[in-house]
Amino acid sequence: MVMRATLAELAQLLEAEIVGDGQMTICGLASLEEAKAGDLAFVAGDRNARGRLAASHASAVLVAPDMPVDRPALRVPDPYLGFICLVEEYFPQQHPAWGIDALAVLAPDVVVGQRVSVGPCVVIGRGTRLEDDVVIYPGTYIGPGCHIGPECVLYANVSLYSQVTLGRGVVIHSGAVIGADGFGYRRLDGGDYRKIPQIGGVLIGDGVEIGANTCIDRATLGNTVVEVGAKLDNLVQIGHNSTVGAYTVVAGQAGVSGSVRVGTGVRMGGQAGIADHVTVGDGAAIAGQAGVAADVEPDTTVFGSPAVPSTLAKRAHLYGLKLGELFQSVKRLQRRLEALESRSEGK
Amino acid sequence: MVMRATLAELAQLLEAEIVGDGQMTICGLASLEEAKAGDLAFVAGDRNARGRLAASHASAVLVAPDMPVDRPALRVPDPYLGFICLVEEYFPQQHPAWGIDALAVLAPDVVVGQRVSVGPCVVIGRGTRLEDDVVIYPGTYIGPGCHIGPECVLYANVSLYSQVTLGRGVVIHSGAVIGADGFGYRRLDGGDYRKIPQIGGVLIGDGVEIGANTCIDRATLGNTVVEVGAKLDNLVQIGHNSTVGAYTVVAGQAGVSGSVRVGTGVRMGGQAGIADHVTVGDGAAIAGQAGVAADVEPDTTVFGSPAVPSTLAKRAHLYGLKLGELFQSVKRLQRRLEALESRSEGK
Amino acid sequence: MVMRATLAELAQLLEAEIVGDGQMTICGLASLEEAKAGDLAFVAGDRNARGRLAASHASAVLVAPDMPVDRPALRVPDPYLGFICLVEEYFPQQHPAWGIDALAVLAPDVVVGQRVSVGPCVVIGRGTRLEDDVVIYPGTYIGPGCHIGPECVLYANVSLYSQVTLGRGVVIHSGAVIGADGFGYRRLDGGDYRKIPQIGGVLIGDGVEIGANTCIDRATLGNTVVEVGAKLDNLVQIGHNSTVGAYTVVAGQAGVSGSVRVGTGVRMGGQAGIADHVTVGDGAAIAGQAGVAADVEPDTTVFGSPAVPSTLAKRAHLYGLKLGELFQSVKRLQRRLEALESRSEGK
Repeated sequence: MVMRATLAELAQLLEAEIVGDGQMTICGLASLEEAKAGDLAFVAGDRNARGRLAASHASAVLVAPDMPVDRPALRVPDPYLGFICLVEEYFPQQHPAWGIDALAVLAPDVVVGQRVSVGPCVVIGRGTRLEDDVVIYPGTYIGPGCHIGPECVLYANVSLYSQVTLGRGVVIHSGAVIGADGFGYRRLDGGDYRKIPQIGGVLIGDGVEIGANTCIDRATLGNTVVEVGAKLDNLVQIGHNSTVGAYTVVAGQAGVSGSVRVGTGVRMGGQAGIADHVTVGDGAAIAGQAGVAADVEPDTTVFGSPAVPSTLAKRAHLYGLKLGELFQSVKRLQRRLEALESRSEGK
Repeated sequence: MVMRATLAELAQLLEAEIVGDGQMTICGLASLEEAKAGDLAFVAGDRNARGRLAASHASAVLVAPDMPVDRPALRVPDPYLGFICLVEEYFPQQHPAWGIDALAVLAPDVVVGQRVSVGPCVVIGRGTRLEDDVVIYPGTYIGPGCHIGPECVLYANVSLYSQVTLGRGVVIHSGAVIGADGFGYRRLDGGDYRKIPQIGGVLIGDGVEIGANTCIDRATLGNTVVEVGAKLDNLVQIGHNSTVGAYTVVAGQAGVSGSVRVGTGVRMGGQAGIADHVTVGDGAAIAGQAGVAADVEPDTTVFGSPAVPSTLAKRAHLYGLKLGELFQSVKRLQRRLEALESRSEGK
Repeated sequence: MVMRATLAELAQLLEAEIVGDGQMTICGLASLEEAKAGDLAFVAGDRNARGRLAASHASAVLVAPDMPVDRPALRVPDPYLGFICLVEEYFPQQHPAWGIDALAVLAPDVVVGQRVSVGPCVVIGRGTRLEDDVVIYPGTYIGPGCHIGPECVLYANVSLYSQVTLGRGVVIHSGAVIGADGFGYRRLDGGDYRKIPQIGGVLIGDGVEIGANTCIDRATLGNTVVEVGAKLDNLVQIGHNSTVGAYTVVAGQAGVSGSVRVGTGVRMGGQAGIADHVTVGDGAAIAGQAGVAADVEPDTTVFGSPAVPSTLAKRAHLYGLKLGELFQSVKRLQRRLEALESRSEGK
């Protein structure tokens, strides 16, 4: 990934203060560890930043105003955000321009906006609408009656069932499945199951990003909802009739069962799970691998399986590690008590 | 989702008793919470049914014979089952009628039954047979030597390797992969691995439903088997040479390793796992996130990781939460004992 | 699966010692349990091998030099490895010979080696190169700028984003997604998130096998790396900028977060997880469902969530099961102490 700009040009873009030679040429952007001569690296305020800087081969660095530097630098209030801006400017994401590919199969009544790109082997069902600037990668299937908002990107081999509605700028990574039947069966006498028809839909808000091979089931009735700005990592499961609140972040392989309410701004760790019908309050945090079986209060952190507030869980874990000592202590107490008792008896 | 029927017509369909005006028009089916004026909602025997009913905007309700109602109603012995019947009648599932799409690629010797629908970009290998009324959605791949039973539905972007046999009415959701190689390697001196060839197959029984992005590996030799009526949710893993018994239900993100025997009518919770070569007895229940490392007796419930019978696990969890008190108690005992000892010494 | 060979022919192939009639005809290979008359079965040194042999219908067996047998047999130092050789000889894996299928869509500048097979509905982006003997199954998408090494096999419906490099003989199973964006967002004031552009790549070493529906994210900058000979099972998640070492084996549904270093020859159990920025030493073992939140020393085994060395974890588990007794013991001690105290007071 190669670029070409002077430090001064980058400074102007970021409204940064220049330290050292503004005419230095920058040929690449990298992390401190991976930077080669000619690269600009950024220094976030993480542990051991100074040592990592000293060891870096970067020719220049992007740093906070108060960070001591040993080479040419750009100073900005938020170096990480500055770095994001530079990457977006010099390495903008480009999607293939398929137009409507000759090997795409759109039902006759599909409505297509301006500047839409649909790759080969895409199939789109009846009554579906693609707004302006939508990109659909090869092999993706979109069922009937869907609405794909402007600037949505669906990568390769995504599957959308019918009645799925995406807001503006939704990004769906490869292999994700949106709108498959919720997992609902009614047990019959004799052990067999009767399928509960799943005729609801899925609503995905503006700016939501959905990871590779993630599954979001349709509702039995009504809608499964992922609200504006929520981010789901790969291999996540969202069950039927659940709601994931705005700006909530769900890490990889986490699972949300059916009829769950996850609030706004919640952070859910990898491989965590939430049982049916649970409510998770706004701003709560669920640790990785936690198993949430009961409602979680807003702005609390839970941990463990079954999940309990994290202070409690950590203490229980520490106690657990000290259990051996406790068993020993009790044994010693017993012996001492016996000694006292026999002495007391002996009198 | 709009329908149009009188309450009396619905009553006739369900053989229900009518309460109130049979000529009332019903325009939709909904849950109590989502119902609007004109809708029929159903009331299952769940908690707080009466309060939820009072707050509902439904124009009529489907209830059990003994449930007090405040509006027009239909009374049936099992309202949930009645509701399923109404949804099936008024909102029947419809699959696109592709015939054999011009962009489907079938090997010359593929045998195709009556009323089969195969979408664009489906590829089917040599020697495979599709029975009557099969539906294959776009982008699905079926390898050579497979047998797809009557009334099977394979949604978009499913992958079947060779030698996979599906019974009658099997439903496979998008992204599922059936028949990939089992995960078997033989460790060699020097650390490298030799792949163990996986030349067995997969047998899926009648009425099985397989969730989105679920994986069922082929056997090394013989078959991996999912028996009649079993239901697997999304993102489930079934390892090579394992058997999942009839009417067993496996929730999302659960995993079954290799050579496992899961009995009949087992319920396996979300994100639970079963280790290699374990046997789970008929009617057992495995709690969400449980890690089963040893055989499970029939009709027992296990919990935790490693999993133990649930009563044991719950007790251990409660003890864990009380550990702090126990440490305190032991400290107090120590002090009291010291006091006694010094008094006893003093004499 | 039918073959036809004499015991003597098989003996020659394996350089085995023959016990009994070398002219016996072998028609199939099977496990001891599944073998029918005419089959050769192998006996690994597992528990109860003698009983299983006695109960088997196999006509002949492949055994170690010291194993007593009750029927014709072939003796080799490593029966399991011998069996693998026989399967590979008599049931070699065959891939369909599509050539470059008429319904495959390759960008004009794609470079294609000798004897390459590309199925229908495969789409390959600009600047990508396929080396000799590559097989690409239907519905697979390969983005621009990828390099597919010789003898790679990509099964159906795989998705490779741009800038993915595969070494020699890499096998990728259906539904796997390589190179999707890493999960990186910068939280802004107000709760919204700014996406961190993900412009790095993915490097997959020689001989790596990647399971069905497994996801390996691209790096933010630099590369996510899976080194030579590593084996990943189904539904595994590998986060951005992580490295999985050579000959490391990762079981199903396990997850590696971002910027993790997993060493060489590590074994990671099913549903285990590793948190961001953790280092796992060479030769370590991570038990199934373990949650690794801190660095793991080489050649150690960890267990539990949060993970601790397995001896510690097992002891803690045993203590946990004995906690009830401990609570009882402490109560009894309290009562005995009270008795002593009141006696002591009474004097």
